[in-house]
Amino acid sequence: MTFLNELEQRIGQQHVLTGQSMQQYLEDWRGRYTGTAVAVARPASTEEVALVVRLCAEHRVPIVPQGGNTGLCGGATPDNSATALVLSLERLNKIRSVDIDNDTMVVEAGCILQNVQQAARDHQRLFPLSLAAEGSCTIGGNLATNAGGTQVLRYGNARDLTLGLEVVTAQGEILHGLHGLRKDNTGYDLRNLFIGSEGTLGIITAATIKLYPQPVASCTALLALNTIEDAVQVLALARQGLAASLTGFELIAGNCLQAVLHCYPDQRMPFQGPAEKAAWYALLELSDSESLEHARERFETVIGQALEQELVQDAVIAETIAQSKALWHLRESIPLAEKAYGKSIKHDVSISVSVMSQFVHETDKALQEAFPGLENVTFGHLGDGNLHYNVARGTAFTEEELLKRQDEIYTLVHDSVHRFHGSISAEHGVGQLKRQLLPRYKDPVALSLMKQIKTALDPLGIMNPGKVLPD
Amino acid sequence: MTFLNELEQRIGQQHVLTGQSMQQYLEDWRGRYTGTAVAVARPASTEEVALVVRLCAEHRVPIVPQGGNTGLCGGATPDNSATALVLSLERLNKIRSVDIDNDTMVVEAGCILQNVQQAARDHQRLFPLSLAAEGSCTIGGNLATNAGGTQVLRYGNARDLTLGLEVVTAQGEILHGLHGLRKDNTGYDLRNLFIGSEGTLGIITAATIKLYPQPVASCTALLALNTIEDAVQVLALARQGLAASLTGFELIAGNCLQAVLHCYPDQRMPFQGPAEKAAWYALLELSDSESLEHARERFETVIGQALEQELVQDAVIAETIAQSKALWHLRESIPLAEKAYGKSIKHDVSISVSVMSQFVHETDKALQEAFPGLENVTFGHLGDGNLHYNVARGTAFTEEELLKRQDEIYTLVHDSVHRFHGSISAEHGVGQLKRQLLPRYKDPVALSLMKQIKTALDPLGIMNPGKVLPD
Repeated sequence: MTFLNELEQRIGQQHVLTGQSMQQYLEDWRGRYTGTAVAVARPASTEEVALVVRLCAEHRVPIVPQGGNTGLCGGATPDNSATALVLSLERLNKIRSVDIDNDTMVVEAGCILQNVQQAARDHQRLFPLSLAAEGSCTIGGNLATNAGGTQVLRYGNARDLTLGLEVVTAQGEILHGLHGLRKDNTGYDLRNLFIGSEGTLGIITAATIKLYPQPVASCTALLALNTIEDAVQVLALARQGLAASLTGFELIAGNCLQAVLHCYPDQRMPFQGPAEKAAWYALLELSDSESLEHARERFETVIGQALEQELVQDAVIAETIAQSKALWHLRESIPLAEKAYGKSIKHDVSISVSVMSQFVHETDKALQEAFPGLENVTFGHLGDGNLHYNVARGTAFTEEELLKRQDEIYTLVHDSVHRFHGSISAEHGVGQLKRQLLPRYKDPVALSLMKQIKTALDPLGIMNPGKVLPD
Repeated sequence: MTFLNELEQRIGQQHVLTGQSMQQYLEDWRGRYTGTAVAVARPASTEEVALVVRLCAEHRVPIVPQGGNTGLCGGATPDNSATALVLSLERLNKIRSVDIDNDTMVVEAGCILQNVQQAARDHQRLFPLSLAAEGSCTIGGNLATNAGGTQVLRYGNARDLTLGLEVVTAQGEILHGLHGLRKDNTGYDLRNLFIGSEGTLGIITAATIKLYPQPVASCTALLALNTIEDAVQVLALARQGLAASLTGFELIAGNCLQAVLHCYPDQRMPFQGPAEKAAWYALLELSDSESLEHARERFETVIGQALEQELVQDAVIAETIAQSKALWHLRESIPLAEKAYGKSIKHDVSISVSVMSQFVHETDKALQEAFPGLENVTFGHLGDGNLHYNVARGTAFTEEELLKRQDEIYTLVHDSVHRFHGSISAEHGVGQLKRQLLPRYKDPVALSLMKQIKTALDPLGIMNPGKVLPD
């Protein structure tokens, strides 16, 4: 019997796609990565995933696990050899259980993140993982890439929100690890090994995730600042004064907000005077377990200190939920406004907060020297040390010229990140995009350990080959 | 040249101990585990650790890494074969740097935990890892065993407090991973693999740890309760009402506090009437970023709700720091009071909070049926689902009889934990004590993955053999 026949027998003919019906699984959502595959398998259960993996192991067929297909680094797209099987987790989409007293929930890998958030809300709980693709990304993909998002400052990355995993290994065995324990010291931390491994060590089929109380009130403030140094000092004040209630601290370069106002005339800057054109802005979010009034009072105290210390030029604290939303909307509109200016070269980097300012100054300067006229479009999660250090063509380049020099720009920026002991992938992962960069930027001993682990756990090399690990 | 000569040449003769001078390194602090060794090496730097490991790899000499020697499972004690080298990290005891803006600190493995806490305080920061042995345990040992302690509910275990590691591998190479990044998705999570592996995969020589703002005020409350079910409901109210300000939620059986009062007549119960002899107590700690007054107000709101819902029989909220300390002192005196009653059989287990009550009832009942007259001495960190489910001889047994039946009692309790999908080692690790229990209680696929990783990273099997992994 051929591989495809056996596959159909194991999971049902209608769940093995070939030819045209595979199309949507062979290209990522942004159209950056395209590949071919022998078929797409859509198993319905963990047992079926295990059956498929065992079959692939027998036939030495490489497997590309896929969730919502919203990744940014091509980790879920097959290569062009037409030898791989795309294994879509989309039919494993059940919320298996919600345990209110334990504040945990067991979800299958194919659950859409928004549905997971909603299930938590239905039980008056918060699942804090939140990111732009939440309407279509899956929790399995979030875990495979250790997704970040806007609440990391308070709640951590995807790995920090996970207590247990169910995984199908490269041998097609099922690791049963779905306990909801906050403490378990009975051996190696396999959970965190699979989280962030982008399907190269095994396939996450379900997870036990942590739930939190819903905040009673959220409040947002926008500050106008002269320098990143000042923003770093305000962050310190805010962490001291607000502790875990500080759930967001975003840094935004002035030109980003100017671009938003230019593209979206219905949005407006909440400042007048010089603060309207400040060099930098910080967007702060406070989640309070008492009341909106209390949240505002706490903001007033901290921002009052910052004004007194002349760290802040001007500040506005939202008075209503609508005002909070309007301030966040300014921030969320940046990527779209950026797009309206044409393609930009994006860098998802992290740097110690203490050298963030120096990194930005030195890298900006080096870029201008090498490519006069380029424009920086910098924003990010200052509280996590994570910058989206993006570079637009500015006045001096056409889009075509910019893209032609893309690799030079990558190298200049990533080299600078490396000099500052930062990371060239803060929250998006490695996938296809950055794997060949690792030998230049990653500790050689770390890379060697990664390869040893890969060989040990996937000796046939069938789990998502060509991803994460460099050649 | 012999192994010992070479060793002396590499790290200096005075730092290679043999004969009588080894004694304190060959026995754990409680005197439960004793071993022999070829020598004790006390390298002074990461480079020296690497030299020692390379030498041991050449000569196939097993290595037993050791920190403060305060572990509870014999993980740092050599066996009796006199073939191993004990590698003490005690001379790697520098705080390498403190980065205030980034809220991180780089510490060497041999730093005493209390010194790490103090260094954070010196910079107006909190390093929240806190446990009974903090005056002599080392941060390296804390990380090797993924220590828990009293602040886990809010801040997590040792692994959650760590951003980066420096590790000497089993080949004597140095993994340089001391970045202070909160986000880094450039490959497998090696950090969490080494944390909790008890020296069986490599030797942690330094770590970058997270700092937090110091709370402005702490406040403690003691509640008298009828049942564990009620305590679980109060925990839910407290998490909802206090969110991240709730930094402790301890559950204490009534007889534990009675034992404390009996042993230490200078301590007193803050209740009168029936609450003096309640079945259960809960000790809550609230850390506030505003004021003691505010902390008390918040406690009053939450505890008011609990009283209204008749979940609590009586409650006292500390009015002063001294009162808070007195309440904690009751809790901290339990292990000593327990000791005064003679040896007890200890179980460090974790269970989902939602089935905690059922677990205790069923296990208590099964114990009484099998061993009539035994006495349960149960307390623990309810907020983390972690119970110290200890068993004392009660009226029916002598100490000798109890110890004779120790293994039967272990098996009964651990089997029950297993039925409730709990863990037989919540925060103490595996070491020598529990490794042979893993085949009975641990998922076989997890165990097999652990062995594959061990073989891949330590093919010579020289890193702390006889620990963690079962034969």
